[in-house]
Amino acid sequence: MIRVGYPASLDPGQLRVSEEIELVPLADGLEHEVEVDVWVTDPYPTRALRIWPHLRGVRLVLSLTAGTEWITPIVGAHVTVCNARGAHNASTAEWVVSAVLATLKHFPLFLDVQRTGEWRRRREATAEYERQTGDMRRLHPAVMVEELTGKGVLLVGYGAIGREIERMLEPFRVHLMRVARHARTNPEVHAVSELDGLLSEAEVVILMLPLNETSRGMIGAAQLARMPQGALLVNAARGPIVQTDALVEALEAGRVRAALDVTDPEPLPLDHPLWRCPNLLLTPHVAGSSPEFARRAMGVAEEELRRWVNGEPLRNAVQVAG
Amino acid sequence: MIRVGYPASLDPGQLRVSEEIELVPLADGLEHEVEVDVWVTDPYPTRALRIWPHLRGVRLVLSLTAGTEWITPIVGAHVTVCNARGAHNASTAEWVVSAVLATLKHFPLFLDVQRTGEWRRRREATAEYERQTGDMRRLHPAVMVEELTGKGVLLVGYGAIGREIERMLEPFRVHLMRVARHARTNPEVHAVSELDGLLSEAEVVILMLPLNETSRGMIGAAQLARMPQGALLVNAARGPIVQTDALVEALEAGRVRAALDVTDPEPLPLDHPLWRCPNLLLTPHVAGSSPEFARRAMGVAEEELRRWVNGEPLRNAVQVAG
Repeated sequence: MIRVGYPASLDPGQLRVSEEIELVPLADGLEHEVEVDVWVTDPYPTRALRIWPHLRGVRLVLSLTAGTEWITPIVGAHVTVCNARGAHNASTAEWVVSAVLATLKHFPLFLDVQRTGEWRRRREATAEYERQTGDMRRLHPAVMVEELTGKGVLLVGYGAIGREIERMLEPFRVHLMRVARHARTNPEVHAVSELDGLLSEAEVVILMLPLNETSRGMIGAAQLARMPQGALLVNAARGPIVQTDALVEALEAGRVRAALDVTDPEPLPLDHPLWRCPNLLLTPHVAGSSPEFARRAMGVAEEELRRWVNGEPLRNAVQVAG
Repeated sequence: MIRVGYPASLDPGQLRVSEEIELVPLADGLEHEVEVDVWVTDPYPTRALRIWPHLRGVRLVLSLTAGTEWITPIVGAHVTVCNARGAHNASTAEWVVSAVLATLKHFPLFLDVQRTGEWRRRREATAEYERQTGDMRRLHPAVMVEELTGKGVLLVGYGAIGREIERMLEPFRVHLMRVARHARTNPEVHAVSELDGLLSEAEVVILMLPLNETSRGMIGAAQLARMPQGALLVNAARGPIVQTDALVEALEAGRVRAALDVTDPEPLPLDHPLWRCPNLLLTPHVAGSSPEFARRAMGVAEEELRRWVNGEPLRNAVQVAG
């Protein structure tokens, strides 16, 4: 038998991919030792890391997370590790489009107005819009919401999630500009070296690229200064791609707006100046965490387990047992 | 010459559709009498109604609003009145999709958390989700956001804005059900008599239909009771389509969620119980009011003026001079 440990809190779904499989639920707070050949991790690293010391005999780790930097160092080189690549694409892309629309519709402003319990339309929305965009010319009639339709959108990073974002933006007929590490065509993608020139044409800038030595600190004071007055910076990738101090300064000056699911540092400490910045929508690294994410991640694990059992090549191995 | 009065706060764009046109800006606070043949109204009825008593000789009213119930009674039957049909379709449809996404991403909750200045992920989002959906089974792992992708969406009303909403929902591959006054096919539209049966299949219910004797009070306690636990009711049409008392009760019981741009009564008075309802996103009738709306409405007026000058049939006449 092949013993497959999985988080007791999750439905194991179709993990019993052959007659050989014995499913072993692993409860949070596990205290005794458990023998398993395959470990399907908890999607939350902190919980998974509490389980690991109790496992014996693990040969294959099927992580339910996209990143595996938290697990490879501790399991050692004699274990194969696979990630759940793709499982969070749809949820993260949805968060990005939702954050763009919520900002353009001034929902944070209207929620604050709602909390006051008073029906106020023109004065607050107009003053806020004026502060954000510096655009007096468009203030007559008073502006209550902005449209995404027809806006210039710069997508920095054009992997699987970036393409998913592009697909979700299609009905809005945005003028989409794409940037990736290397220029390519069909569709047109600009090289990252062209980024600074493109920023001035973007009313919305979406960061959706991995953190590496090229992307770390990519958006600083110079880049923020190139964005049009009132433009929106969206980051659901990794916090350190943006220089936090420069962003705080640009937000406080009313130069740009931002929607962030990730920050640097993260978690954002109590009393960090970002908490009190205007024109900011901040969620605590939740963009990918939908119920569907857990189901999709389990589906990825199931397919990988089937391949491993049948001796077929693995799809998402980030480390093969040495 | 044909004298065309227009709101001084707006760019008259291309209203000079022939050599015969003389443009007359009408400032808010106008105190003297002005002779005009054509009146392009202010998009805000309260301001337009301050202008009207000073106008003389008006034969054609080109309203920049979609509704004209505020203007036809006062101008009398000897004046032709046209509305700005279609100008607010895109902005209103965008608001609906934005409100759905913002609710499913729990942005109101996360904005409240943001205001506390503390990075809190699981506890609050999970407790809130549990309260909204009553769905304990899906709470492991903790839920932070929900996805629109694949949800069951019931669109009540299938006119121009409804079709625009459908177009914007396409990338999310929702299971769309359509209801209109009469059943039809290609695409399938159900008759309003089938509404109650469809409500139980809808995780999102969007009201986008005119207010009339069929639609008034259409969503009451019985209809809300048919919606699945935690389902979302969206109203950007007219407040009285929903029975407010029944909605307040369902919201307070945690049965459903709502996103409203319109209410009954409207404006919502101070201390109305709706202000303090949980799971509610409420904006003060702003969904259509984007800068692009004003430009599109002016474009509609321009085309209508051209037709009138050339003696062609008008497109959006709601009243023809008797």
